[in-house]
Formats: sequence, C-alpha cells, structure tokens
Amino acid sequence: MDLDLSLAAPDLTARLVDTESVSGTEEPLADAIETALRELPHLAVHRDGNALIARTSLGRDQRVVLAGHIDTVPIAGNVPSRRQGDVLWGCGSCDMKAGVAVQLRLAATLDAPNRDVTYVFYDCEEIEAERNGLLRVSRNRPDLLAGDLAVLMEPTDGAVEGGCQGTMRAEVRATGQRAHSGRSWLGRNAIHEAGPILEVLRSYQAREPDVDGLTYHEGLNAVWISGGVAMNVIPDECVVTVNYRFAPDRSLDQALDHVREVFDGWDVTLTDGVGGARPGLAAPAAASFVSAVGGTPRAKLGWTDVARFASLGIAAVNYGPGDPRLAHRPDEHVEIASITDCEANMRAWLTA
Amino acid sequence: MDLDLSLAAPDLTARLVDTESVSGTEEPLADAIETALRELPHLAVHRDGNALIARTSLGRDQRVVLAGHIDTVPIAGNVPSRRQGDVLWGCGSCDMKAGVAVQLRLAATLDAPNRDVTYVFYDCEEIEAERNGLLRVSRNRPDLLAGDLAVLMEPTDGAVEGGCQGTMRAEVRATGQRAHSGRSWLGRNAIHEAGPILEVLRSYQAREPDVDGLTYHEGLNAVWISGGVAMNVIPDECVVTVNYRFAPDRSLDQALDHVREVFDGWDVTLTDGVGGARPGLAAPAAASFVSAVGGTPRAKLGWTDVARFASLGIAAVNYGPGDPRLAHRPDEHVEIASITDCEANMRAWLTA
Repeated sequence: MDLDLSLAAPDLTARLVDTESVSGTEEPLADAIETALRELPHLAVHRDGNALIARTSLGRDQRVVLAGHIDTVPIAGNVPSRRQGDVLWGCGSCDMKAGVAVQLRLAATLDAPNRDVTYVFYDCEEIEAERNGLLRVSRNRPDLLAGDLAVLMEPTDGAVEGGCQGTMRAEVRATGQRAHSGRSWLGRNAIHEAGPILEVLRSYQAREPDVDGLTYHEGLNAVWISGGVAMNVIPDECVVTVNYRFAPDRSLDQALDHVREVFDGWDVTLTDGVGGARPGLAAPAAASFVSAVGGTPRAKLGWTDVARFASLGIAAVNYGPGDPRLAHRPDEHVEIASITDCEANMRAWLTA
Repeated sequence: MDLDLSLAAPDLTARLVDTESVSGTEEPLADAIETALRELPHLAVHRDGNALIARTSLGRDQRVVLAGHIDTVPIAGNVPSRRQGDVLWGCGSCDMKAGVAVQLRLAATLDAPNRDVTYVFYDCEEIEAERNGLLRVSRNRPDLLAGDLAVLMEPTDGAVEGGCQGTMRAEVRATGQRAHSGRSWLGRNAIHEAGPILEVLRSYQAREPDVDGLTYHEGLNAVWISGGVAMNVIPDECVVTVNYRFAPDRSLDQALDHVREVFDGWDVTLTDGVGGARPGLAAPAAASFVSAVGGTPRAKLGWTDVARFASLGIAAVNYGPGDPRLAHRPDEHVEIASITDCEANMRAWLTA
C-alpha cells in the first residue's frame, strides 16, 4: 500500500486506521511508512525491525524527538474507519494513529525546522514490555534517540503531561501454620495474619509531591490477594500483591525501599517494576515547547514510554490528540479538531 | 471371595484390607459381607445398594446400632496388608476396616445379645456427601436405623467421643469500585475493605460450651480469600470464605444467624453446611455403654456420620479401634491390641 503524506492529518489518520497493525503484525504499515519517508530528501531513515527512525541533520542548536507507536490493540469490529461529522471512529484512531499522522505530516512538510527533529515510529507498545520497539531501539542504537527533549505523542487530550510515575509490584506474604479447621487452634491462620497488611494499606497516606513544578499523586494498593489450601484447612500462607505507583522523584530502588519500610516485618518480594520520568520542564527545549502549545502542563500519573527516554537521560513529555479514556475501547474515536490543533501547535513550535 | 467370620478380628481385618473397596467399588466386598451375614440365622439381612443392614429381633428393651463404612480412600501402594509384630499395615486398616471387623465378629458370635443389635455396613463415606450410603439408607428405610443409641465405629483410639460439631461455610464479601491503579483514588479498593473482616476473625473469641457434660470447642476461620481483577486495576470485590465449626447446642440455622451477626453489615452467603450431633450420654443406653467400655468420654470436634443418626433422633457416639491421625495416610496402620480391646469391650457391654 502507498501512504500519501500530502493528505490532511485527519484523512491520513483514517488511512492509517484502515491499515491494520495489531501488535506483532505491523510490517505492512512499517513498510508503507518507510517507503514514504525515504522519498523525503531532508530525512535520513533507519529501520530496526518494524521501527523507523527518520532524522534531519541541519546542525541546529537543539534536537527534539517526536515518538509514537504504530501498533494497536486487537480489532473489535471497528475497522475500517468511519468519519461522521467532526469525529473519526476506528481502532487506533485515538491510540495513537492520530498522533502518528501528525508526526508524518510534520516529517513530510518541515524540510527546515527551527530545531533538528528525530521522528520515531515504533512497534509492539500494546503488549509485553520485553517486545517494545522503543526499548529495542534504545538498546540497539541509543545514539539515534539522542535529543534535548522527547515528545511522546500518545493521546493527552491536547494537554502537556510531564514525565510519568513509576510502577512496581511486590508480594507481601503472611505466614501461619496448617491445621485441620476442626481443630483450628492447633494452627495459625495466615489469612487472619494478613489483616494487619490490609490495615497498613487502608491507613496509608499517599504522597502528592511536587516534582519540577508538577504535582504527582502516588498510590499504594492491593491489586490481588490469595490464600487457601482446602475448604477444611487452616491455611499457612496468604499473599497480598501490592502495586506502588510512585512519583518520579523516587527511583525504582527507592520505591522498593519504601515498600519494604511500610511492610516492615513481613516478607516482601519484588515481582516487577519500572521507574518513572521527571518532567524536566525547566530545560530550555521543554519550556519553549510548553509555551508554544499553550495550556497548563500537568503531571502524567500513569506509566508511559517517556520513561524509556528518561532512562537515556532525555527529558520527555506526553502530548497528543485524542481523549485517553477512549483508548482500547470498541467505540474508540477522535475529534477531528484535536488532530488539526495538535498539528498546528507542533508546527508553530518547530517553525517559529 | 469368602469371608470367614470365625477368624480373630485382627486376621479378619487383614482379609478386609486385602479386599480392595475404594469408594464406588465396594460391590465385591459388600457381596462377601452379605453372603457371610445371610448364613447367620439370628440376623435379618437387608441390602440397599452396597449397604447392608443386619438385625436381631429378640424383643429386648433396648436396640443399639453399630455402624461402619466399608469403603476406603484410594490405594497408595499399601495393599495387600502386612502384619509386623503387633501392628497391621494397609489401606483402610485404621479407617475403618478394623472397626468393621469388630462389627462382623460381634454379628457372627452374639446370637443372643442383651440388647437388640442392628449392624450397619455402608458405602461411599470417603467421598461427596450426596453419595453417602448411610444418608441413602436413612432416606430409603429410616425404620431400619431406629434404636436407642448408635455407635459409629470410626477410629477414636479407643476413647468414647460423644456427638460431633457441625460445620458450615459462608462467603463474606467486601465490595468496592473498580479504577485504574494509576488513579486509585477514583475507585474504592475491595481488598482493603476486607481488612475489617479479617480483624473480626482475628479478635473472634470461640466458644467452648459444655453440652450434655462434654466440652466442645468451636472455631471461626477464613479458609479461603480471593480478590483481584488485573495487576493494574483497583478490585471491586474481595471474598473471604469462612468455616464455622459449631458445637451441637446450635442448629445449622442458629450457626448461620451467628455468622451473619458477627459479620453484620457485610454480604454473607451460605455455601454449605450440616448440623452436628449432641452426645446424648445421659440416655440409659449411652450411660451403660460408657460405663462398659471405660475411660472418660470426650467431645467429638470434627463432623462425622453420627450427625445422620442425630437427624433421625438417635443419640450417637464415636468409638472404634485405631489412631484417627493415621487415616488416609500411605503408612496407615492399626495396633492389634486396639482391635482386640475394642471387641472385648463391646462384647462385655452386649453380654453383661
């Protein structure tokens, strides 16, 4: 298939939606993007699997990275796209082919932007972290991701969301001693022993720290609990899986230390975790970006791929068209105006 | 196969062990028992499936019921039986072919006992309650189970254990509101809400009531807990399954009322339950039994089939050879002396 980058961004979004690219099946779309990018003489194009990196080399003082994933969650009867008045419906319309369309329009039309630009299109964002295309590129060619600011064009409803919170899970384990439930006093009930763990969670006061001028909001929650051997046995183990969402002023190690401190005296085992990203809005590139797109920046509370840029030492923000609450839904859609507004704001920033 | 009831009880136990009768496969053993019983002119024999009821009809003032199940848990490399000095090893040796052997020896040799005797041999005790042979007989022919006292000859290590406690399970449910764990304050965590349920259980003071002269010991315990939707979701439900073991001064309905009262304010759903049995040791037949076999009676804490007699209005005790802690184990065994002592005590009671 051919991708006509002279189309307006909303029409281009529709074409992208119509080219199915569920995670793991992005190759046809990656091929089309590669072909279109290679026709642009002001960009040097590199391919890594189904990820593409296209860069200007104008010798500008700053370099900015515009990144977006090209995969979607599974189709749910919502392809092909459907335009209805000011709204475009379809799988990936919001998350995040509208953002990718804006990237492609900027790549095609800005042959002399005021900052050098690196456009990153990557695969497998919607599935297990280990297959994430941005992670793969950051390992294979971190030099290609270098820059003063990265803008991850995931849907933020047109607001600038700075950085992101980290997330980690740990198992907090209460132990006891098995016995027949007909003589329960011969044992020690591990489910009962988990009561104080839940009390700690109930009374936990989550931090809402200010980091680089943005207010984050942490949370420490049980997301799973399991205990039980048989319906007539006093159980000897009960495991509470807690999820700590932590502000980017704490590293993953510090977050784990905090959880261990909160559950002092219990067995605490880290199961998985990843650090967040500071907003870095004080950096010159970020400040000019915020001023160009307008609005009041807010903290990003969920974890996003901006953290991968943070781990490379690059300040990163989330900014893109579409309401994030519509992502992954069968009735996923995007307002046409949010696409055109986003493109206009980005263009203003990169040409002013 | 033939069952030679002139064998001594320990040898007869060995023959019974060697005739495999895992629950559901009792027919050959039931056939052998039926053939042997029908040769005894002082007994009237009735068969119901793989259960057998054999009764004297001497017009005595009292009638006693001696009951035992003929099935075993699955074989675990422990058949055929093995005699080693004063111990007999094998599947069912303790639970409860030794008790069945004593029943058969008494049936064969007591042609004029001082009380009328009903011998009950039944199937499917080790599996789901609905298939229990004693339950089936109690529905088909309750008249055949009538009596002044029932002795269930399950292993009690030679002690008299009166009645039994009831048991019931209920689900106690905490509810909340789902949310993404990145914005946990938009939801209400049902696992956290279960904390007070566990606190109630931790601080619960179990009754140890005296019932008809025996001290029972209740227990209210969580035997299962489950909650969790996904590793990044605030869960909207957490279910604690509690098991209440209650003394026989409470009916199942009263037990459920108590659990509802303890968990006032939570959703409580009964999942299964069965009432216990009062010891009834004050009844004349029971008093003479206790005096004949000696020792100090104690309360039966686990639930047993004596409750089926209780539901027919018949006082019932547990009394039989073997250590109950050895039941269901690959190394199951029984002391020879416990078999011969039991037979001698029963014989003394029924002939004095």
